[in-house]
Amino acid sequence: MNAHEGLSHKKMSLVNPDLSKERSSVSFPIEEFTYFIFGGPEETKKKRWLISLVDVNKEPVFANKDIYFISRDKYYVRTLEKMKKLIQVKKQYNIDGDDWIFLLLSTGEPMHPILHDVLFIPTLEGQMSREQSEKWLPLAKDYAIFGCYAQTELGHGSNVRRLETIATYIHETDEFDIHSPTLTSTKWWPGGLARTSTHAAVLARLIIDGKDYGVHSFVVQLRGENHKPLPGIDIGDIGPKFGFNNVDNGFLRFTHVRIPRDQMCMKFSKVSRDGKYSTSSNAKVVYGTLVIGRIYMIERASFSLAKALCIAIRYSLVRKQGNDTNDNPNETMVLDYQFLQYRLFNGLSIVYTFIFVGKWMRDLYDVNEKKIREGDVNIMADIHSISSGLKALCTDLTMGVLNDIILACGGHGYSRFSGIPSILDNYAQNPIVEGDNTILHLQTGRYLIKVFENAKNGRPTPSTLSYLKGYSRILSERSRAITWEELTDPNEQIKALTHYHTRLLAKLISNLEETSKTHLQGYEGAKSDYMIDIINVSKAYCYTIIITSANEGLESIKSTYSNIYPILRVLINLFFSNFIIKYSGEFLLDNYFNSNQIKIFEFGIKNCLERIRPDAIGLVDAWEFSDNMLNSALGRYDGNVYEALYNWAKLEPLNLAQERGEYVGYNEVLKDIYDREYLKGINKSKL
Amino acid sequence: MNAHEGLSHKKMSLVNPDLSKERSSVSFPIEEFTYFIFGGPEETKKKRWLISLVDVNKEPVFANKDIYFISRDKYYVRTLEKMKKLIQVKKQYNIDGDDWIFLLLSTGEPMHPILHDVLFIPTLEGQMSREQSEKWLPLAKDYAIFGCYAQTELGHGSNVRRLETIATYIHETDEFDIHSPTLTSTKWWPGGLARTSTHAAVLARLIIDGKDYGVHSFVVQLRGENHKPLPGIDIGDIGPKFGFNNVDNGFLRFTHVRIPRDQMCMKFSKVSRDGKYSTSSNAKVVYGTLVIGRIYMIERASFSLAKALCIAIRYSLVRKQGNDTNDNPNETMVLDYQFLQYRLFNGLSIVYTFIFVGKWMRDLYDVNEKKIREGDVNIMADIHSISSGLKALCTDLTMGVLNDIILACGGHGYSRFSGIPSILDNYAQNPIVEGDNTILHLQTGRYLIKVFENAKNGRPTPSTLSYLKGYSRILSERSRAITWEELTDPNEQIKALTHYHTRLLAKLISNLEETSKTHLQGYEGAKSDYMIDIINVSKAYCYTIIITSANEGLESIKSTYSNIYPILRVLINLFFSNFIIKYSGEFLLDNYFNSNQIKIFEFGIKNCLERIRPDAIGLVDAWEFSDNMLNSALGRYDGNVYEALYNWAKLEPLNLAQERGEYVGYNEVLKDIYDREYLKGINKSKL
Repeated sequence: MNAHEGLSHKKMSLVNPDLSKERSSVSFPIEEFTYFIFGGPEETKKKRWLISLVDVNKEPVFANKDIYFISRDKYYVRTLEKMKKLIQVKKQYNIDGDDWIFLLLSTGEPMHPILHDVLFIPTLEGQMSREQSEKWLPLAKDYAIFGCYAQTELGHGSNVRRLETIATYIHETDEFDIHSPTLTSTKWWPGGLARTSTHAAVLARLIIDGKDYGVHSFVVQLRGENHKPLPGIDIGDIGPKFGFNNVDNGFLRFTHVRIPRDQMCMKFSKVSRDGKYSTSSNAKVVYGTLVIGRIYMIERASFSLAKALCIAIRYSLVRKQGNDTNDNPNETMVLDYQFLQYRLFNGLSIVYTFIFVGKWMRDLYDVNEKKIREGDVNIMADIHSISSGLKALCTDLTMGVLNDIILACGGHGYSRFSGIPSILDNYAQNPIVEGDNTILHLQTGRYLIKVFENAKNGRPTPSTLSYLKGYSRILSERSRAITWEELTDPNEQIKALTHYHTRLLAKLISNLEETSKTHLQGYEGAKSDYMIDIINVSKAYCYTIIITSANEGLESIKSTYSNIYPILRVLINLFFSNFIIKYSGEFLLDNYFNSNQIKIFEFGIKNCLERIRPDAIGLVDAWEFSDNMLNSALGRYDGNVYEALYNWAKLEPLNLAQERGEYVGYNEVLKDIYDREYLKGINKSKL
Repeated sequence: MNAHEGLSHKKMSLVNPDLSKERSSVSFPIEEFTYFIFGGPEETKKKRWLISLVDVNKEPVFANKDIYFISRDKYYVRTLEKMKKLIQVKKQYNIDGDDWIFLLLSTGEPMHPILHDVLFIPTLEGQMSREQSEKWLPLAKDYAIFGCYAQTELGHGSNVRRLETIATYIHETDEFDIHSPTLTSTKWWPGGLARTSTHAAVLARLIIDGKDYGVHSFVVQLRGENHKPLPGIDIGDIGPKFGFNNVDNGFLRFTHVRIPRDQMCMKFSKVSRDGKYSTSSNAKVVYGTLVIGRIYMIERASFSLAKALCIAIRYSLVRKQGNDTNDNPNETMVLDYQFLQYRLFNGLSIVYTFIFVGKWMRDLYDVNEKKIREGDVNIMADIHSISSGLKALCTDLTMGVLNDIILACGGHGYSRFSGIPSILDNYAQNPIVEGDNTILHLQTGRYLIKVFENAKNGRPTPSTLSYLKGYSRILSERSRAITWEELTDPNEQIKALTHYHTRLLAKLISNLEETSKTHLQGYEGAKSDYMIDIINVSKAYCYTIIITSANEGLESIKSTYSNIYPILRVLINLFFSNFIIKYSGEFLLDNYFNSNQIKIFEFGIKNCLERIRPDAIGLVDAWEFSDNMLNSALGRYDGNVYEALYNWAKLEPLNLAQERGEYVGYNEVLKDIYDREYLKGINKSKL
């Protein structure tokens, strides 16, 4: 029994007949796809069970239907009610780790515990001494306290070095004095800070006897009895945002707040009773939290996109428009239009390519964690660089497709009831948080410059990039593929991308070397004249990783998932071909591909669309999103979109007011305008 | 005196010093740019006067500051209050036409009268007989009645032919019976319908004696005494949307509503007392309303984009981040980063290119209106096609840049207080309304196919496209330009674009002819296999119009606006070069440009960025947006962004509640979670 059958679609007979027909003609067993998405039959069983725990039919608290109507304060309280229930369930069944995250995601709404569990607890775990952990972790894991991660300040985002909040050691009382010396040092943005959190992990500059030891972490209690903010703590909500409005992003300003010395996190750096500072600097501290956050976003991109595509594809199989004539009044199902397939199937190709990338990235991370435990930090910098660039590219591509999907749904896409605006505006923070995408690409690009310089000069390179040593051979290669099959052969795909990013990198280095000869600030200064190029190098490299990991990942599951292998092959070929066409100039510039090969790609894309069309419904149904999770009138499993739109509109509070005989706006204003006598008066008098 | 000085920035001494410095070093007199934007010194004087009429310091009703906090019903009422004041002002000063629209836009918020004035009144004017107009127009123009345009239905958007609402002539009573026979025939989306309108222009199928005469317009009263909906009228709000939530888009379902026969609009089609139908079909009817709506959107695209860019560029001159070292702790002004210039100045190049396009389109429209009055309908189809494609391309490009601008502002861009999310989500309807952009490009592309077939076969072509007769010469051309100056020469720009769209068109025709030989549905059927290509042809053609009109427009003002000509030249060259780089594959494919030329474009773009950088503030200040209109903490004229963010957050209702000692969420939920005794209970009991 899958989630659809079990949860929200008991009256299967009422499903829109076009949708039923589509479902019956999918070329693969949909359940096999579900196994692929969820990670095998056992994992699928577990995930279905997790989904059942937030089933709105059993637990009405998880209902999302009214969230489009309610005010921010009610929306916040509704979220807390869900959170309370989730914490109960978590404790009851001992749910943890990825399962816990999956459970939170399955509510369909942003959930506060994610911030506590993914940012606050790992900070305690990673940066506190053993004694400190033993005191604080049980409280945090039990939700007896709830924490946020207070890094960003009003005037400082990405540049952590310049945070202004200070923690001054007070010898007399053995305390730190936490203080916000300027307006711009006000902590700003931390999720859960404004009203939910009792405590915060505060990043502040450590000052001892007037000396600045740089940024360290401190645990500060924010609220006391009855949740009242403690003295010296100016705390509040930063106001409404583009999305994420059920989460209380907050501000926090300290006026000389004292905390005991042992609330500085002292795993690596310590301050003793007599104010002596000692440190055993360990790069891994920073590395770990940053990288796992980004990997999480790489893995999750396909999830948000799949939700939006599930809505758009189901709706496009129900919606009919145009192509009618006097002789044939039947309109065409809109998914049969090539241009709509082009938009939506590009999205599908990204969703499924990303699944492989996410898995590849996580595997690499696990390998590295193991190596680090064994004392080998060889691929750490590499992983940092790859995860940065991939986070940037994956979230940017996802945002682009989400924007396309709203448009693909015509007018009704613009309604909140479509569910897509909320997916989009909640997602829109992803290119900014955990590192601004532009900054991340610059980091990755600069890393590649360094590695390439090493490769060029015979110095060691990380194993993932050792091929750069053969860069001159790579640059001289041209594609000899003639047919579509040859052009999209996995090895040819990887070769084309490798050639592309190597060429951009080599060109950049040559430009940098040339420019640095005359640039006042030398080589480093020259880089600021090539920021656009550095970003483009990072993108090209990350596309290579995506194409490589997707092709290698797919070939590795060929026998396990033989029924779905063919359509996955088409999806990855489509991703690759769309990439080639979008950047065709880059490949024609040095004749890596010639104009005939480009034409084959153009033609091949259309064949992919035709091939995907009958399977489209299977590719989105396989995710087993519940209707409550999608919270969309257009994306319902049963396809009864027009009834849903109409019935949902009836719940709009403004309409309920009208039913009570209250015509909002009329008594207040409109009757003054529509009263002709009143208007005559205006015309006569001078205002 | 310009609007800044007069209205909202009295304390000029408090302006951020970096911003002041930037303003003092702009290379041109900013006022000359304002004249250019507003259409000359006299027009500028008038527009400044119009802006002063909605000055929040004189008329507090126009304050926008609280709109980010208030509920939909309050937001709606606030908008009506503004509308009431605007109508008073309109009547007092006899403000009409474009001035009235400009006044509405200057409030910074979507305004209902736009819908009444731009959709309802033109329908009455265009489709009613003289006697009907004499009765209805004075009422509508006096706002004694308020109307909406009820075309779209729940199940029918772009395909007007298939609207389902019926208007059946009842001989006995000389009435029409307006009826919604199905759920999908419910009118859905019309702006102002839900609560504001007293009347609607309803598009419905005319049925006489069982015969369907197709879609016609009818005026139907919706509400009676005390604004109560009339019998048989099921009316309400369609619920919250992505943006535009102060406007009451509504639904409307008729159950056999009777209206007198003379409420069918009878300028061209008539029904007599004995039920005889007669028509003097005139294509202009439909043409006029559609085209002017699209032209309006082409003209307005630069306005929305300029608002967002004004915010982003001012903020980027105040915001500092990174590039600091231990030796030099000063961070860099973010607009000095090349990648940010690349993003934002691309936006500026679009804003100013669009000003020329808008003017060119309006001039062509005026010429055509004159021709039509003289009985010459020669360029009507051409204008319809150009305005369709341009509306699609201009609104798509604008959306793309708005998405970029949010990201260019880092974290604070995501806050509603930045003002950008609201500009974006209000704008996001533009690619959908007045014709879905994809459908519009298909129309334009199909028109071009027809014209090209005519040109190829020696049949007449419209004058704007007569050059297609020489298509084989155009196809054989290659660029011989060597330097940046030659490559961006206005004639070379136009030549490159003409070559590009002609090549795409010729390739498409050849593919269509080939495919139609074997396609079951022949030539028409083949088109459905080439939808992507048809859309691309339309885009290429519209880019040509943009580049052509911008270059010709700029050269024509060279002497009038000699001080700003140089920077406008740079902006248009940037627009052109960005286009060439984005589509470089298309130009390399047939060697129109070679790889050296492409490199010159890449290099030239960076030079443009450097040249624009010191003038950036002038290019946005010139619009003279008031702070109230931008409604942005980041885009303030005085640059005091951090104070603004902090003070604005203090007004958040959730913070005001806290000041009263109410901790929203705590009593309701949080205290249950944070109470350890309670949690212990959970751990023990089985749920």
